[in-house]
Parts: sequence; structure tokens; C-alpha cells
Amino acid sequence: MSTSPSNGKIIDGKIIATALKARVAAEVARLKAEHGLTPGLAVVLVGNDPASEVYVRNKGIATVEAGMNSFEYRLPGTASQDEVLAKVRELNADPAVHGFLVQFPVPDQISQQAVIDAIDPNKDADGLHPLNAGRLASGLPAMVPATPEGCVIMAKLAGGDLSGKHAVVIGRSNLVGKPVAQLLLKENCTVTIAHSRSHDLPGLARQADILVAAVGRPNMVRGDWVKPGAIVIDVGINRVPAPEKGEGKTRLVGDVAFDEAVKVAGAITPVPGGVGLMTVACLMRNTVIAACRQNGIALPKDF
Amino acid sequence: MSTSPSNGKIIDGKIIATALKARVAAEVARLKAEHGLTPGLAVVLVGNDPASEVYVRNKGIATVEAGMNSFEYRLPGTASQDEVLAKVRELNADPAVHGFLVQFPVPDQISQQAVIDAIDPNKDADGLHPLNAGRLASGLPAMVPATPEGCVIMAKLAGGDLSGKHAVVIGRSNLVGKPVAQLLLKENCTVTIAHSRSHDLPGLARQADILVAAVGRPNMVRGDWVKPGAIVIDVGINRVPAPEKGEGKTRLVGDVAFDEAVKVAGAITPVPGGVGLMTVACLMRNTVIAACRQNGIALPKDF
Repeated sequence: MSTSPSNGKIIDGKIIATALKARVAAEVARLKAEHGLTPGLAVVLVGNDPASEVYVRNKGIATVEAGMNSFEYRLPGTASQDEVLAKVRELNADPAVHGFLVQFPVPDQISQQAVIDAIDPNKDADGLHPLNAGRLASGLPAMVPATPEGCVIMAKLAGGDLSGKHAVVIGRSNLVGKPVAQLLLKENCTVTIAHSRSHDLPGLARQADILVAAVGRPNMVRGDWVKPGAIVIDVGINRVPAPEKGEGKTRLVGDVAFDEAVKVAGAITPVPGGVGLMTVACLMRNTVIAACRQNGIALPKDF
Repeated sequence: MSTSPSNGKIIDGKIIATALKARVAAEVARLKAEHGLTPGLAVVLVGNDPASEVYVRNKGIATVEAGMNSFEYRLPGTASQDEVLAKVRELNADPAVHGFLVQFPVPDQISQQAVIDAIDPNKDADGLHPLNAGRLASGLPAMVPATPEGCVIMAKLAGGDLSGKHAVVIGRSNLVGKPVAQLLLKENCTVTIAHSRSHDLPGLARQADILVAAVGRPNMVRGDWVKPGAIVIDVGINRVPAPEKGEGKTRLVGDVAFDEAVKVAGAITPVPGGVGLMTVACLMRNTVIAACRQNGIALPKDF
């Protein structure tokens, strides 16, 4: 992928995600034409959490727009763990489904880990199965979580070759912090993983050529935490009160105090309009990768 | 485990490994008495590499000394990959074998990764299966590679609670660097992974409260790389010429220039006599853990 990454300093998620989706669509077209293969992505939604509904709908639209098959399965919020696992096994066995995910969070009666462990690692579109975490850590072909992949695509577009650069990741979740660290290590960065127990977070952050904030605390990373010229990737999506927009109104902010950091950073992702837009595009890319691997089809090197 | 970790500054691998082996032996005795369970460790040796022969023999002796069952299987250096995999499947199915490993390196006609992937992750005494790497990374119960586990046991004995301390790991191998980093992260350290592509390795190392050297380059880490008071864990075992001992003689040195670093460090592992002695003890501990998990037996918390 080669795209102008930024409007000045701003790393524009919309431009990069749109380009990636177009790349995915072109690859899907090739797979259909040359191999008669239509990649399929399925989503299982348990209950009707409104935010999940929106996200699942957006995934479905993007999947169809890319020429792929989109499948959606809904289970009631009262579904038992066994019922969810039965659906997982059904999708594991369905040859039209190359990748799928169960939308989290799931209701309390269902163990998230039990669901993850039941997913065929080869169809694990979200890259959450421990086998994929381990394959990523071991440098083997893996299904990679979409948001971390999006972060690294953005960092590379902004920074070029990352080899030897010092990346500091604040946050160590299985969903973002840890896989981002693995991906940056694979890019030959020196990688520091910092978190709530770390001493002198600002001092650690100031060492970063690439600073990834993935903690879920609004505006935690201040301008003076940023080394001049650094690439700042803000994974946080936090809803905060916005009385300036009217009583009871809210707005989205990242983990980085954008107005301060933008003055210091070499490049920075905004919130909204940054990393968040990459997740669906990377999920679709994952599905194409999975479809190719399952069918022994080589992907273009730059995909 | 609680043991005096050091003779002054020196973290004595012999004392710590002996104490750990005694702890393992006591647990084995309890499992036999209370559950009629004798943990069993098997080793598969392909060919007759002299260093591997010595190592396998030492493992066997230590296993029997701890009261466990020791199994040794030898295949000729000409064995095919299929023959090795057949042995792996046999051990996967053998209820008397709770943990096993195939001694690496294996001859060229056999894929190391194919062997690793074939091992039942629950019996993976060396913790090399990607599922175990992923379970470790995801904070789930895992079989953990023995040498990294030994490093962290030593660091904790020397440094107490490691929470919030800055650990710098030089080296990113699947066998040592990456799992050490995961284990130190689990201890709530800030963790930096540095490697051959890192800029300013000395400067990075000097930040370390806990410095782990796992690169395989004799005496690479100099005294002025060490922060005063730091804990230094030297994983390197390098054979170098020792003309002072006579023509053609050699000696073992670590990745750390010991004579320089010992003047600055708060505590340091020697080579030989340090980390190397922990590996067999941790392997036996792994086998006991595996035997307990496979039989639904709880282990003492401090095991």
C-alpha cells in the first residue's frame, strides 16, 4: 500500500482506510476471477448492545462493498454458552466462512475466553486465539488483531522504515498493547511496554520515536510527553462530556491531549478519524488473508 | 521458594537451583503419597550430538533424583521427520509421560517447527509450542520455557517485588528473549526489548533496573552499560579460547563482561554457575506442573 499518509501532520485514518479497503476489494475481485473464490466474513452478535449493533452493521456494509460475502448471526442476550459455542463450531465447519468473530462484550453467562478458545485459529478474524498470539510472538504466520495492525500500517506510512526506532507502547492489553508491541518488534523497533505500574511514564514516553497510547484514559498523554518529531498513534476512544455542545452532550477524545501533542509530534492520528477507521479495513484484509491461506493461494507481497 | 539468593553480589545458580530441585522433590513425594501420581519426563534425542548427550544425561539424573519417572528415547541421526513425529504422537498419548521434549538441534532433514507444532501443548515441557507462547502472552496458564523462568526466579530472589521496575532484555529469540520479556511484564515491570537493530544499546541498557543479556556474544555488555545497583541476569553461554589454560583450551563466558559489571551491579549471575544451572530445575518443575494440571490437582501457591 502506498498512499499519502497525512494532511500535514495529521495521519488521516479516512484516507488510509479507504485506500486499504480499495486494495482489499481489488484482491477480492482477483480471487473471484482467477480462483472462483469469494472470501466470507461472519459476525456473531449475542444480545443487542447498541454500540455493537452499529459496529456490526458497519462491518457488514464494508464487507459487501468489498465484494465479499457477509454473514450475520444473532443470538438472544439470554443465549447459553453452549449455544454460542455450537454456533462457533458451525462456523468453524462452514466452508463459505473464511473468517469470523463473536462480537464482544458477550453477556455475563458466557465466558469470553471459552468462546475465543473454541474458534478455529485459521478463521479467527480478530486474531484473539492464543495460538495466533503465540504464532505472532514466534514470528510465524498468524491472524493478527485488526486494531494493532491498523496502528502499525499508520506508523509505517508516516515513518517509513521503522527499523531501529524506539517504540513506546503505553498499555498492555491482549487486544491492543501486547500485539502492537509484537508487530513493532517484527518491524525491528526497540520496543518498550509501559503501563499503569510503570515509573515515570512521561519520561518513558519522551524517549519514543513512535508513541502508541492504548490505555483508555482521556487526554492522559500530554504535549510534554512527546518527543519533538515523534509519530504518535492514539488508540484511545473515550467519550467525555461536552457541555459546549449543549447540556448532556458528549464527544470522543483519545488517550492523547491532541491540541498539545500536535504542536510537538512529527505526525499524529486524530480521534475520531484515526486508528478507529482502520479496524474494519484490517478485519476485511484479515478475511482475505484467511481465505487465501485456507485455499493455498499466494497473496501479493505488498498486500 | 525462599532462599538466600546471593553470596554477596553474586546470584548463585547452584544454591537456587538446588533449593528449587528440593522443592520439586518434596512436591513429587506429596503427589505420590496423596494422589498415587508419579510425574514423568521424557526426552527424545535424535542422533548423538555430544553436547546434547551430556545435557540429556544430566536431565535424566536430576529427574530420577527428584523421584520422578525419566524416559529416554533415541532415534538415529538418519531418522526421518515422520519417524520423529510418530514418536511425538506416541508420547502425546502415553499417560505415564506428563512432559517431554525433543532435544534440539535436530538433524537437517527434520523441521524443528514441525516437531514443536506436533507436541501436545499440555505436555510441552520446554514451552515452545506457539499455543504456550500465546497463552503466556495472553496471561493464561501456560507451559513456560525453562531458561526464561529460571531468569525471573533469580531476578525475584535478588530484587524482591519487581513491580514498576524497568527491565531491559537484550535479545529477542523465541527461546529466551521474548518469553523473558513476557514473564517480566507479568511481574509488572516496564519492559524494553532491545536487539541487534537497536540504536544506542549501551544507553538503553543503562536504564535497566533489571538487565537481561541473551544474545550469545561473549562479553558484549560492558561495565559502563550497567546502572549502579542493577540486577544483571546473564543468559549467554559462550565458549572462547583460553590460552592461559594451555594451547587449544577454552572456557565459558557469558554475554556480560563479568569482571567489569560485578563492580557496578547490585547483583549479578555468573557464567558458569548462574542461569545455566536453573534450566534443568525449571524443566522438572514444569513437568510437575503439567502432571498436576493433567490430573486436576492443585499446586501449592508458592510452587
